[in-house]
Amino acid sequence: MQTYIDCYPCFLRQAIEAAQMVSTTPTQKQDIIHHTLELLKHIPEGATPSEIGAQVHQIIREVLGVDDPYQGVKRDATTKALALLPELRMILDNAEDTLSTALRLSIAGNIMDFGPNPDYDLWEVVMRVLHQPPAIDATDALRQQLAEADYVLFIGDNAGETVFDRLLIETLAKPVTYVVRGGPVINDATMADALEVGFDQLAEIIDTGTRIPGIVLSQCSPDFQVQFKNAPLILAKGMGNYETLSQEYGPIIFLLQVKCPVIARDIGAPMGSTVIKAPGEHSESKTR
Amino acid sequence: MQTYIDCYPCFLRQAIEAAQMVSTTPTQKQDIIHHTLELLKHIPEGATPSEIGAQVHQIIREVLGVDDPYQGVKRDATTKALALLPELRMILDNAEDTLSTALRLSIAGNIMDFGPNPDYDLWEVVMRVLHQPPAIDATDALRQQLAEADYVLFIGDNAGETVFDRLLIETLAKPVTYVVRGGPVINDATMADALEVGFDQLAEIIDTGTRIPGIVLSQCSPDFQVQFKNAPLILAKGMGNYETLSQEYGPIIFLLQVKCPVIARDIGAPMGSTVIKAPGEHSESKTR
Repeated sequence: MQTYIDCYPCFLRQAIEAAQMVSTTPTQKQDIIHHTLELLKHIPEGATPSEIGAQVHQIIREVLGVDDPYQGVKRDATTKALALLPELRMILDNAEDTLSTALRLSIAGNIMDFGPNPDYDLWEVVMRVLHQPPAIDATDALRQQLAEADYVLFIGDNAGETVFDRLLIETLAKPVTYVVRGGPVINDATMADALEVGFDQLAEIIDTGTRIPGIVLSQCSPDFQVQFKNAPLILAKGMGNYETLSQEYGPIIFLLQVKCPVIARDIGAPMGSTVIKAPGEHSESKTR
Repeated sequence: MQTYIDCYPCFLRQAIEAAQMVSTTPTQKQDIIHHTLELLKHIPEGATPSEIGAQVHQIIREVLGVDDPYQGVKRDATTKALALLPELRMILDNAEDTLSTALRLSIAGNIMDFGPNPDYDLWEVVMRVLHQPPAIDATDALRQQLAEADYVLFIGDNAGETVFDRLLIETLAKPVTYVVRGGPVINDATMADALEVGFDQLAEIIDTGTRIPGIVLSQCSPDFQVQFKNAPLILAKGMGNYETLSQEYGPIIFLLQVKCPVIARDIGAPMGSTVIKAPGEHSESKTR
């Protein structure tokens, strides 16, 4: 998905929110804003929002001189999610359709995102997503592909969300390779974040080799590229992975919450909806 | 009220929405965005959001080579408001407290604003504002000042909103001097817009002498400055007038809908609330 001009104010807002969230001096704030404004003047054609986001967050890191300004935010998110784990397990244990419920819980966890909308009540979101039919629903296709796949490449998104993904991974009952970012960027999960919640007990963990909050294949490590090309089934969480992979061919299923109007328009599902999307599958409301 | 850094993304969003609303070439869109980004890099300390907004809209006019790009939008707003006039009159005729109802209707009309949030259902807003107690309510002070004033200086805001203001002016039952902007800026009402709906039958109309969507006294015409200083009661509609006059002393009452989080914080009333505010009067939730 390309960067639309509607994304520009959102990049600026994210830069400002980041500057305010991680404690900075007024000069640092001004520097972050100035550099972001300069960046927005020179966005290359065809760049995805995730790539521009990566550059915004590189500016923030460079101005602050801090490699992982969201470390505290990520820890808080993980703690918050872990606190719900017993209730989430109970929901899953009592579910009629375990896979469908595990998918919804994993998508509920996708709210833990400090890009588009940092304010939410986690439990309220879990309840909403559990009872809300996905606007695009490729669960049947996923079920079929899962039955035939001997393993799953699971591309994660945010720290904290990993806790919700754990339940889905357990439910899949297949070997899973879990993909994290190649380094800290926004609140996306890294190797350290995944290890902190014991993901190595659950799945093989690999990283993309880049600090982009999405998957720009040409910039990923050769190792990751091979893993991606060979995977019999890929689950990709969140908007960043959708933005960067929506034009790729392959056995991908996107699992996400629609949290921004630009994605809503692109994917053909309303704001606030949830999506389980295989390539080529659209909601009925999509105008093409 | 000063410009907060939270306002920056909103300026950029307004520039982009304006560029998309008035039909432009891709080059013009890019030019508008580039010049706005450059402007945001050099915001002078202490400037109000209305002054920056004025500069954003000057960029838009200059790039488009059009003096009043919102002319069509303003005509549509006026037509939409005029269509409701019979129902609004009926509401007012049946009101127990005519002044209070006329104030609320006038505030309902303040939704007709293409700055912060251009999407709304006008009738829905009228119903909501009629039944929603103002978060800050200086109606009693206004009533008292009105009884003692021999005329009212009424500072208008947007085209279309003027139709709602007409009902309030009729209810005030005092001579009114109605203030419009010195030239087209966003969808704010100008002399031409006011004349188009026959305001000259109702009130003396004067303009500020500037194209700022608010009242920066030092930049207004000497005539307007005298009018402002001598007025026994001033009603000021909308956020732009609040932003620029909130630090002025005088017999001012602000009438507005809170449509942006920065104003909400500054005025001490929640988003979506309505406000009838005299200087020094705050909601109980205001933390100072």
